[in-house]
Parts: sequence; structure tokens; C-alpha cells
Amino acid sequence: MEPSDAQAACFEAGIKFGSLYHQFAGTPVSPDSADSLARAIEESIENQPHCEAVTVEILTEELERALADGPADYTELTGRFLDVEIRVAYEGHTVRTRMEMEDGYPLMRLVDVGG
Amino acid sequence: MEPSDAQAACFEAGIKFGSLYHQFAGTPVSPDSADSLARAIEESIENQPHCEAVTVEILTEELERALADGPADYTELTGRFLDVEIRVAYEGHTVRTRMEMEDGYPLMRLVDVGG
Amino acid sequence: MEPSDAQAACFEAGIKFGSLYHQFAGTPVSPDSADSLARAIEESIENQPHCEAVTVEILTEELERALADGPADYTELTGRFLDVEIRVAYEGHTVRTRMEMEDGYPLMRLVDVGG
Amino acid sequence: MEPSDAQAACFEAGIKFGSLYHQFAGTPVSPDSADSLARAIEESIENQPHCEAVTVEILTEELERALADGPADYTELTGRFLDVEIRVAYEGHTVRTRMEMEDGYPLMRLVDVGG
Repeated sequence: MEPSDAQAACFEAGIKFGSLYHQFAGTPVSPDSADSLARAIEESIENQPHCEAVTVEILTEELERALADGPADYTELTGRFLDVEIRVAYEGHTVRTRMEMEDGYPLMRLVDVGG
Repeated sequence: MEPSDAQAACFEAGIKFGSLYHQFAGTPVSPDSADSLARAIEESIENQPHCEAVTVEILTEELERALADGPADYTELTGRFLDVEIRVAYEGHTVRTRMEMEDGYPLMRLVDVGG
Repeated sequence: MEPSDAQAACFEAGIKFGSLYHQFAGTPVSPDSADSLARAIEESIENQPHCEAVTVEILTEELERALADGPADYTELTGRFLDVEIRVAYEGHTVRTRMEMEDGYPLMRLVDVGG
Repeated sequence: MEPSDAQAACFEAGIKFGSLYHQFAGTPVSPDSADSLARAIEESIENQPHCEAVTVEILTEELERALADGPADYTELTGRFLDVEIRVAYEGHTVRTRMEMEDGYPLMRLVDVGG
């Protein structure tokens, strides 16, 4: 069946999430550099078509907890350290999405599809 | 509004596309190494949840054309060299997607959403 | 032969360059988002061991030239848009490196190895 | 000081390691897809200048151990699952390098610099 505009909006939202995660996962990050990285992720993904807003929080407390176990003062960015929201608008349909941890895995999910 | 299962299927399909592109864009590639890279991309993305099939063709003729212009015998993987199809199934809904070049940009699009 | 400390310093400098390029190549970038991306690249790579300073300039004029040819208002980060300098210090040896375009390819090179 | 050819060889070897790690870290990987990914990593990095040989082993036993803890049947590629050797030759100097885990971090190191 021909996809509807609302379905295309959801597809576009998924593209943004997958892009964000696989472009930036693995980036060296520390509590001190978390803020510049969060801003760069937001602004770079907002460049993509139909992307209205990206909010990235890098969880510095979780970073500090991870670093307390080892000798290094930085680690690699992964889902455990990320709280992300993305809003996409496509042909009048607005889609809100979120990334949350579930059972130790970053789960990306649709929150709301608006008319 | 609460997303429907068909919309969630489209979101999942988008995640796979964004992941594929931003994980592997930039990989050094030549006509000789194109085949092993295409297989690895297929098998790695097929690991993702709800992903039924990924077909990747790396366009070796287009690669050869790009390399004919310069001194190097490899280049970086980008959308210009890729033909990709992904099939996702989620709660009984099957989504087919494709990446094609349009105006020099890789355009990812929904082809079909099945019931 | 056992590597010397000066050789290890050069190896470390190479790691930073390869990391920087392959972590961030492919990131969506526009003239407006170039600055936040450049700062994030600098701060993330400076986290790596023995890395004293990273200077990244994203060439917005070159970006604007590339975008003038097409319908989009962003593109993917690649060597053509980057001017990078990295300074590494390892066991008393300081290494300065640079990335420059040569024949259309990003060439990373050692500038100076100090005692 | 002007870098020596042996130092430049070490720099080149570092570039290959940083490239390999930051291009492929984060790739979805399972015991079944490990082999195609390892081959693709080898062949793609061997494209880079002065790179004579790349050997990648993805540690499937370590993968299985990691997956036994959670609900998923794949994870993201990271240093914990990798055993890598790279040989670079530059102007008559051959450099051998290895990646090993140390204190839970992937440590890239020069093994041998030959005349």
C-alpha cells in the first residue's frame, strides 16, 4: 500500500534517530566535554530534512559513575549516557520520539504522532 | 495520538536506514573491497530488531568513474555509490524501503507499507 | 626493533587523526552548525591520551560553494571542508600534525617532531 | 625537527588504527555476523595508503559472554570484542602494531619498527 503522510513522518523520525546514534556513538566523551558534544549533535541532526528540534542531554552523572570504575578520564559515547528527544514535521504531521534505556539497551520509541 | 503499529513499523524502518548510512558512510572502499563491505553492511543491520532483510549493492561502475578522476585507488563510501533496500516487519506490518539518488542526494523513501 | 619514544609519539598522533576523521566524517553540517561541530570535535579528541591540543576549522566558504550547486542547505562533513591541527606529547616528545587537501584528498601529515 | 621516514611510518600506522576503530565501533554485531564484519574491516582499511596487511579477529566467545547477560542477540562492536594487527610499510620502514585490552580499555600499541 502507498504510505500515508503520517507514516512517512514516522519513517523520517526513525532516520534521524538512527543517524544520530550511529554517527556519534563511539565519540570520546568526558564530563567536561559533554556539553559541546550535546550541542553539536543537536545542531547537526537539525540540519536533516523535516527535523524541527533535537534535544540531547549527556548524562554526566552516569559518565562519572562509569569513569569511577577505571583508570581513564573519558569513555566512548553510548546509549547509556544519552537522553534524546526529536521532533519531526512532515506534510502537516508532527512526530515526537524519545530514546530511553530499557534492560540496558537504548530503546528508540515513538511518543506521539500528531495530525 | 498514540502511534499505530503500522506507524511504529515505519519508524523502525527509518532507524535501520539512518543507522546503516551513518555507521558506514566514510568507510574506505575500492572496487575490490566493495563486495565484502556490502555483505558486512547487510549482515550487521539485519541484527537490528524487526529487520527482516537488507540488500546492499555497492555500485562498482560508479566507484570506477569516481576513481578515474584522481590519483587514488579507493574513496570514501557515500550515498552516490549505494543502492539499498530494507524490509522491516513489526507486529504484522511489513514495510519496504529504498535508498535512491535524487538531485545528487541520497534519498531514503518508504516504498510500501503492508497490512 | 623496539620503538623509540619519539616513534611512539608519532604513532599516537596518527591515532588521533584517524579517530577524528572517521568519527566525524559524514556528520550533517551547514554553515550555521559548523561552529558547534568544530568545538565538539576539538574537545572530544582532546580527551584521548597524550593529546595536548586540537584545532579544527570548518571551511564555511567551501561549504557555501558546495551548497550553491544543489538544492540542500546542508551536506556531509568530509576532508574538503576541514582544516585540522593536532599536537601530541608523549614522554617528552612533542609532535605537530596537520591535515591538508592534496589533489582532492585529505592528506594527514607530520609537521614537526620535537625532542 | 623534520620527521624521519621511520617516524612517518609510525604516524601512518596510527592513522590506520584510529580509522579502523572509529569507523567501525558501534556497528551492530552478533556471533553469526562477526565473520563478514571482520573481513570487511580488513579489506576496507587495507585500501588506505601504505597499509600492507590488516588482521581482525572478532572475539565471538567474548560476544557470547556479553549477550548471555541480556535480552538481545546482538550488541555494538567495541574494543572488548576485537583483536587487531596492522602492518604498514613506508619508504622501506615496516611497522607492526596491535590492539589489546588493558584495564578494560582498548590499547593500541607499536610492536616493532623495522629498518
